[in-house]
Amino acid sequence: MNLLYIGTGGFIGAILRYSISKFINQKFPFSSIPYGTLLVNIIGAFILAYLMSLSIHKIEFSKEFILFFGTGMLGAFTTFSTFMYESISMIENNNLLFSAIYVSVSIIAGIFSSYFGYILGRS
Amino acid sequence: MNLLYIGTGGFIGAILRYSISKFINQKFPFSSIPYGTLLVNIIGAFILAYLMSLSIHKIEFSKEFILFFGTGMLGAFTTFSTFMYESISMIENNNLLFSAIYVSVSIIAGIFSSYFGYILGRS
Repeated sequence: MNLLYIGTGGFIGAILRYSISKFINQKFPFSSIPYGTLLVNIIGAFILAYLMSLSIHKIEFSKEFILFFGTGMLGAFTTFSTFMYESISMIENNNLLFSAIYVSVSIIAGIFSSYFGYILGRS
Repeated sequence: MNLLYIGTGGFIGAILRYSISKFINQKFPFSSIPYGTLLVNIIGAFILAYLMSLSIHKIEFSKEFILFFGTGMLGAFTTFSTFMYESISMIENNNLLFSAIYVSVSIIAGIFSSYFGYILGRS
């Protein structure tokens, strides 16, 4: 039964990731940085940390809700494989500098947004 | 219709991520590094890059297959939000060194596995 909650969350999360990434990439089509993936990853990192912090410090969510919303939906909303593929594609296209900027910004902004979500969840 | 392919892939990918991460974390329960997430992220990065490289250089996959298997399944199989949450949890628990190791190893191994998948797909 747990797997059904995770899978349903994954179904929604993957569709949201695709739709939002596509929308963002259409808004910034000539850019060298894949803003779509960057944005969903940073937003997802923030929301997951906020949710987990709330569940630790303030609200007793059901296990099913955490599996659906956290593990399934937010897990699938963000992606590591596309992030890495975009990074090596930029290296392949001789954009080593942009690849390094993309990786650095993703990690630094990801850590900060996750930490901010965590702090906000317990405050 | 595209969204259905992506969602179905996301359903399967999220369940696989949870099941494999859980299995790995049970095998290494006393470790400081979250090997479960690390492993799925590196495996997913490799397979996505291999798939995309094959589709560029060798095999004409249908758009639906790429949406289902690449965007949906492999996108949801790997995760950035959990990766970031685990990293800041380690900082919160005063394991700054392990957090730095976890982030560095994830990125370095992710880039290498993605690049290896890409090279293998066109060789």
